[in-house]
Amino acid sequence: MSWNTFGRVLRFTTWGESHGPALGAVVDGCPPGLALDEAAIQPFLDARRPGTSKFTTQRQEPDQVRILSGVFEGRTTGTPISLMIENVDQRSKDYSDVAKAYRPGHADYAYDAKYGFRDYRGGGRSSARETAARVAAGAVARLVIPEVAITAYVSEIGGDAIDRAAFDAEEIGRNPFFCPDAGAAKRWEKLVDDARLAGSSLGAVVECVATGVPAGWGAPIYAKLDADLAAAMMGINAVKGVEIGDGFAAAALRGEENADPMRPGANGSPEFLANHAGGIAGGISTGQPVVVRVAFKPTSSILIPQVTVTRDGEAAELMTKGRHDPCVGIRGAPVVEAMMALVLADHRMLHRAQCG
Amino acid sequence: MSWNTFGRVLRFTTWGESHGPALGAVVDGCPPGLALDEAAIQPFLDARRPGTSKFTTQRQEPDQVRILSGVFEGRTTGTPISLMIENVDQRSKDYSDVAKAYRPGHADYAYDAKYGFRDYRGGGRSSARETAARVAAGAVARLVIPEVAITAYVSEIGGDAIDRAAFDAEEIGRNPFFCPDAGAAKRWEKLVDDARLAGSSLGAVVECVATGVPAGWGAPIYAKLDADLAAAMMGINAVKGVEIGDGFAAAALRGEENADPMRPGANGSPEFLANHAGGIAGGISTGQPVVVRVAFKPTSSILIPQVTVTRDGEAAELMTKGRHDPCVGIRGAPVVEAMMALVLADHRMLHRAQCG
Amino acid sequence: MSWNTFGRVLRFTTWGESHGPALGAVVDGCPPGLALDEAAIQPFLDARRPGTSKFTTQRQEPDQVRILSGVFEGRTTGTPISLMIENVDQRSKDYSDVAKAYRPGHADYAYDAKYGFRDYRGGGRSSARETAARVAAGAVARLVIPEVAITAYVSEIGGDAIDRAAFDAEEIGRNPFFCPDAGAAKRWEKLVDDARLAGSSLGAVVECVATGVPAGWGAPIYAKLDADLAAAMMGINAVKGVEIGDGFAAAALRGEENADPMRPGANGSPEFLANHAGGIAGGISTGQPVVVRVAFKPTSSILIPQVTVTRDGEAAELMTKGRHDPCVGIRGAPVVEAMMALVLADHRMLHRAQCG
Amino acid sequence: MSWNTFGRVLRFTTWGESHGPALGAVVDGCPPGLALDEAAIQPFLDARRPGTSKFTTQRQEPDQVRILSGVFEGRTTGTPISLMIENVDQRSKDYSDVAKAYRPGHADYAYDAKYGFRDYRGGGRSSARETAARVAAGAVARLVIPEVAITAYVSEIGGDAIDRAAFDAEEIGRNPFFCPDAGAAKRWEKLVDDARLAGSSLGAVVECVATGVPAGWGAPIYAKLDADLAAAMMGINAVKGVEIGDGFAAAALRGEENADPMRPGANGSPEFLANHAGGIAGGISTGQPVVVRVAFKPTSSILIPQVTVTRDGEAAELMTKGRHDPCVGIRGAPVVEAMMALVLADHRMLHRAQCG
Repeated sequence: MSWNTFGRVLRFTTWGESHGPALGAVVDGCPPGLALDEAAIQPFLDARRPGTSKFTTQRQEPDQVRILSGVFEGRTTGTPISLMIENVDQRSKDYSDVAKAYRPGHADYAYDAKYGFRDYRGGGRSSARETAARVAAGAVARLVIPEVAITAYVSEIGGDAIDRAAFDAEEIGRNPFFCPDAGAAKRWEKLVDDARLAGSSLGAVVECVATGVPAGWGAPIYAKLDADLAAAMMGINAVKGVEIGDGFAAAALRGEENADPMRPGANGSPEFLANHAGGIAGGISTGQPVVVRVAFKPTSSILIPQVTVTRDGEAAELMTKGRHDPCVGIRGAPVVEAMMALVLADHRMLHRAQCG
Repeated sequence: MSWNTFGRVLRFTTWGESHGPALGAVVDGCPPGLALDEAAIQPFLDARRPGTSKFTTQRQEPDQVRILSGVFEGRTTGTPISLMIENVDQRSKDYSDVAKAYRPGHADYAYDAKYGFRDYRGGGRSSARETAARVAAGAVARLVIPEVAITAYVSEIGGDAIDRAAFDAEEIGRNPFFCPDAGAAKRWEKLVDDARLAGSSLGAVVECVATGVPAGWGAPIYAKLDADLAAAMMGINAVKGVEIGDGFAAAALRGEENADPMRPGANGSPEFLANHAGGIAGGISTGQPVVVRVAFKPTSSILIPQVTVTRDGEAAELMTKGRHDPCVGIRGAPVVEAMMALVLADHRMLHRAQCG
Repeated sequence: MSWNTFGRVLRFTTWGESHGPALGAVVDGCPPGLALDEAAIQPFLDARRPGTSKFTTQRQEPDQVRILSGVFEGRTTGTPISLMIENVDQRSKDYSDVAKAYRPGHADYAYDAKYGFRDYRGGGRSSARETAARVAAGAVARLVIPEVAITAYVSEIGGDAIDRAAFDAEEIGRNPFFCPDAGAAKRWEKLVDDARLAGSSLGAVVECVATGVPAGWGAPIYAKLDADLAAAMMGINAVKGVEIGDGFAAAALRGEENADPMRPGANGSPEFLANHAGGIAGGISTGQPVVVRVAFKPTSSILIPQVTVTRDGEAAELMTKGRHDPCVGIRGAPVVEAMMALVLADHRMLHRAQCG
Repeated sequence: MSWNTFGRVLRFTTWGESHGPALGAVVDGCPPGLALDEAAIQPFLDARRPGTSKFTTQRQEPDQVRILSGVFEGRTTGTPISLMIENVDQRSKDYSDVAKAYRPGHADYAYDAKYGFRDYRGGGRSSARETAARVAAGAVARLVIPEVAITAYVSEIGGDAIDRAAFDAEEIGRNPFFCPDAGAAKRWEKLVDDARLAGSSLGAVVECVATGVPAGWGAPIYAKLDADLAAAMMGINAVKGVEIGDGFAAAALRGEENADPMRPGANGSPEFLANHAGGIAGGISTGQPVVVRVAFKPTSSILIPQVTVTRDGEAAELMTKGRHDPCVGIRGAPVVEAMMALVLADHRMLHRAQCG
């Protein structure tokens, strides 16, 4: 099956292939009366845009978004918002080999096995280019949750992690890695460049923190806030793991270490003395920062020849041509932010429906 | 919002509280003509049943399932299958303290913040007792995917991991920990018992492997097989992390290390030479074993007093009474298996709808 | 496919067969804090209950509802509400002929063609007995829309319509036909009894009016209030037509006749001078009474022998035994009311999610 | 709420306003490998296109569809198909009065009451222009059900019905009314033209017949084939009533008159001797032609001045300017056909998922 809609009341549907004429998203259910124009979306697309440093793919895409519906006189009308981004810099001839053989680590074989047929140019629908549409939709979602601030950053590349003591939120926008630690950013320059020059690629970990989320969002038992976030993040291209709060580290803790004790807070709400839970308990937000951690595998497209098979079942050796990110996790940070915004906005509205 | 239905075409809806008269699941969309009776479900409930060893809660629940609809003359009719399990051994008086104060690490405060009101007895709806309904539903789902074999096991407790070299699938059913390594099982006896006697609790990691899944299941972009599995697993009580294949470890690999090369296979399909991807690429199964890893935090209910606040915002100290699992992850294994079955069965049907 | 859940945010799932042990509904998404017990539901079930006059089936079912979850200390908790009604008076032996041959006008053949197999006792899942579960769910939905009053009544039986000039809402509860016109009720006694004695059956029209619905409910373009009502009503057993407002009569009007002019109203809202639209424009409520009209075909089970075929494809003559309503539309009135309540409650919550 | 997606496994989402830059549909879930290009869609849009005779609105829209995704080398890939139609002939200045006052019979007031704000130009999202997107989506759906033939025609305008004895399917494409009776088409020329010249409008009834639908499609109890058709049709602009088979006429029949007797058929399936049921029993297709009848109210936009109120609550008199259809039901026929195709294609796929 093909299933390209995400969300329960605030929903978005994306469409488009890597080398088609355009891609886009239809955002449905957005509250009316919110100020929206292209300029409110573009900065988020620019953050994810390829070709801005040597650490990302050299494909040059302006990623200019166009709003085709749902906005009148600068405000959302409550009707579906159609967002379109034209593809400009396709080079489909790079993919002639890929038409015949399956790239290891890619979705080529899986798509063929499912649909019997695929648009092989740039990975077609399975390309990370689709995430541009999510980022555009995420910019709309942010308007729905003005009380929430969301920040994603890369906390680890190729096994080299940031120093938590050196964490500086201001730093995130100052380097090409969305890295909050200036020292790590410096190290990663060489790390990523070396991998790039070797025709290899690196994995990464992205963390995302949302502050200002009030207690009470989430829809147990089967649309828990953490479950919806897990689906949102695991569905991003190249993601292989998702943690909430302490995540896998919590599995090594004892109950008394993992508890988040409470004391009376200033405004009548409890004040938590720790946040092992990552701001979610029983699938519902607790009022603490919501913390998600996302593992990106190394980009599958590498210049190092790999053993594979052709569509006809013959043995082959394949070296991926085309232009690719040496570390796809870097540009994953804006996508993680967008998915966080989309899930939170949906749950804000869901909560209001039942309990508002 | 409350959202108690899971699945897209094979759907199930659960209901019931820890200390209510009963709990249950309605499984909808099951194909007709499958042989089904209570005896086909009961063994899976028995595996998850509490009170079977000193390493699990001492609450004594027979967990006898009753089929109330959807089966005629021993076969499914294609109409909704209603499954009910009566609660027998509630001891609601244990929960008087909990009515007034919030247990750290529990959903108590979050439920109150959301609904303004909660059934505090045994955690009400947020109790892990709800997972009995999932296990019953999962037993039905298994009938839908006869070609698939699913095995879950505990791979780590309290930071102490199994030895992969000692892996023995036969061992899983021979110890009270669903542990595939006899040596680890031996060590865990003392580990878990010590934690229990200290009034503490331990976290755990559960792994689940599904073999026999053909290539082609999954519904990109927003119902990818891995994304649906992530939601299914993260929604289990006490889960804080989910990995597919190499998961977070993949973030430290280079592209050439993480690739799963292919060579021509016996039956015309490619034979993979590695399975870093955990059997899923681009959100679609590849025909390799589907591998999921799930992190359970330590049980939040411990006998060690904890600092907290009351419903009225006063400071309090709380020691959870009631009967609890010293390591909730152990009984998580049958639940992980059930969710794996439910997701795979749903995707088998989804795939057939579009491509069958 | 089997699809037994209705609604978008206030959802209910029903289960159960005519001759199974029980039937029920799980209502999910209900706001917390509403006063609810069995006594709040039972009167609505009593109104629909069979066996109360000679004008309905003689099957004796107490239809006592039991609440199994979602209510604590007399109030809804916001978690799923499980409602169960046990079947008491099944007489499955009446259905031996039906196991072999298809009753004309019934779903027997269609179910067999779909599922290859069916529970033939009393129609199994296709029995109108399933509507008891809807009526129970509808009683919960009414609590969600306290500002709305819903009244359904039978306006026509066997082609004999009420006199609009004689309309008296008080009369509806005073006769066994939910008839608002005492004169018509008198005529229908003989009409229905004659049909019953002849072993025949009659069709009917049910009207339903909801007052107090504020302007603004409905979710265009594909969950319009009138579209959701149409689905809700057309899905009731034996229904073959649905009209909103003037319905088919509007097709014979000119634009100026069909318009609902407005003038300034007392409270700042427009006052409408007509209601041809039945309280819905563009799929959104206008603040006027919502008016729906529903056509029920005559009961298909009649004592007059009918020409049909057996499961094996042989010609046969069949006379339906068992106990049946001579006019299924009569007991349709409480079901229409319930579905109106369920749709309106869902849309009240949907509206609040986006615009509340 | 805004809800712009229709369907369960074959889903489509529409977007766009009457006077925005474009409108479109995203069709998701379409099987792969079907031959598709713009030329396969355009004839259906041309049939619905405005400005082709004096009996429809004079707005000139070429309604050229463009496929932006989901098709590769002339075949569907199984990924979302994005269809876009640019608006060319907007004349927004015609709507200055409408910005201030509510047109009786239109959705103006309801949209304002819901969203507090609306795009008043040409009715914005509530314009029947949105149905172009459905017709484009419907053309894709037809590819999914090659075994089915669908024909819609106008059976009544302004109360003047066709003569069933004169029914000639060939005639439907020969007159501007989709009328199967040459005599009626002749009469309607004068009828519609007189209404147009008087600045008035007329209602209409559209019938739609689908042949070739096998027995077994439909998803009881809450996605019955007839219920989904009812929602699909009632959601079309200006529709106020929907009937399946005999519809409201069945309410005046006796059981023995309404039964559809069966006898052994040629291919082992029963042969029905009547089709009062309109091809659907118990919400499942029976193998007979599926017959739906749809009532369209007269166009609300008329040149005759009407009493209304302004946004500020003042009394006003309004004469709708702009260009409008004198009988919106005429161009409704291709839309009814499209919705029939979309519902049937969805149910074909749903059926295969569970029973295929």
